Amino acid sequence: MTKGLFITLEGADGSGKTTQMERIIEYFQKNNLPYLVTKEPGGVGVGEKIREILLNHKGPVSSRCEMFLYLADRAQNIDVIVQPAIAEGKMVLCDRHADSTVAYQGYARGLDVEQINMLNNIATAGRKPDLTLLFDVETSVAMQRVGNRAEKDRLESEGAVFHAKVRQGYLAIAQKEPERIKIVDANLSVEEVWTQVKRILDSEINPL
Amino acid sequence: MTKGLFITLEGADGSGKTTQMERIIEYFQKNNLPYLVTKEPGGVGVGEKIREILLNHKGPVSSRCEMFLYLADRAQNIDVIVQPAIAEGKMVLCDRHADSTVAYQGYARGLDVEQINMLNNIATAGRKPDLTLLFDVETSVAMQRVGNRAEKDRLESEGAVFHAKVRQGYLAIAQKEPERIKIVDANLSVEEVWTQVKRILDSEINPL
Repeated sequence: MTKGLFITLEGADGSGKTTQMERIIEYFQKNNLPYLVTKEPGGVGVGEKIREILLNHKGPVSSRCEMFLYLADRAQNIDVIVQPAIAEGKMVLCDRHADSTVAYQGYARGLDVEQINMLNNIATAGRKPDLTLLFDVETSVAMQRVGNRAEKDRLESEGAVFHAKVRQGYLAIAQKEPERIKIVDANLSVEEVWTQVKRILDSEINPL
Repeated sequence: MTKGLFITLEGADGSGKTTQMERIIEYFQKNNLPYLVTKEPGGVGVGEKIREILLNHKGPVSSRCEMFLYLADRAQNIDVIVQPAIAEGKMVLCDRHADSTVAYQGYARGLDVEQINMLNNIATAGRKPDLTLLFDVETSVAMQRVGNRAEKDRLESEGAVFHAKVRQGYLAIAQKEPERIKIVDANLSVEEVWTQVKRILDSEINPL
């Protein structure tokens, strides 16, 4: 049985995560690696309901409420979706995870980063991703890409200063954990980004 | 201006909290005390949506997910509802609050009580209730009362062992904070319970 790995994708909206995720899935299929795809916020069930609140609720949401909702979704994702799949030897690909909360709620919204780390640790029961791909993109490039989308969600609608802080937050996190977090230059074309991603996967997964 | 007080009501389902809450509201009205009524989970807005998940979601909800959902709702309640009302000099009456999480998720579900205290402290930004009325009732009495309700929610449907643990949890919390938490014998009749509650209110609020 293959050893299951917990792989998270991080980066700004507009960093091309979704497109690369499709390529990674094809890569798993070609290499006969069993896999499961999930996302935060909101895989299925209760997570889907939490995602709906986080992305589309119209009324006021306090910063600490928002943070705890992400943590609730994370705990559910780890307990009910990720851990059982890893135990079955699957590759688990998760679109956004703990680093998003540090970057968005911590670095960008100004909540205490050490406290978020501690809370993430509780929400994940200490389970860190085996590999995190950080799709790093210039804020102006990302915003231009998102600007072309018809409907923006609550976080996508934030301004350039907010998104610049998110990016700096991600880079600060990556600097602290270079073993786990691999930075991908996501300013480039889809093919060029995929070349970088594939190289990392080849080296980390070692397919049979 | 009257000094606003943050008053929470705690106790098992079937302890008669709701009936006594109506009496307390009448008491505020008779004494011309401005007031606001809220509840956890779920006052209005985002809290209402969280309440819906907590009480009525049919799929699996991990214990840690449930805990973080309560904390999200609590943070929202404190930030958006409670604190502004207290600042306006209102009496804030809250049906369930931080002690519920300690009793239900901690003592009854077995999550780490010290950790929940720490998390409650983050969710409330350190704001403790000025007064907590704990409606203590024999588990058999409470379950008999709830048993007469047509539709039970997710927590009301738990068994006798669970509810006995909740009760012991509440009593343990009350023992640690006798100044804040006043125990009311809720096995008695509505009138007898109200006599106890009114005595506590008279002593704590000192109406003009």
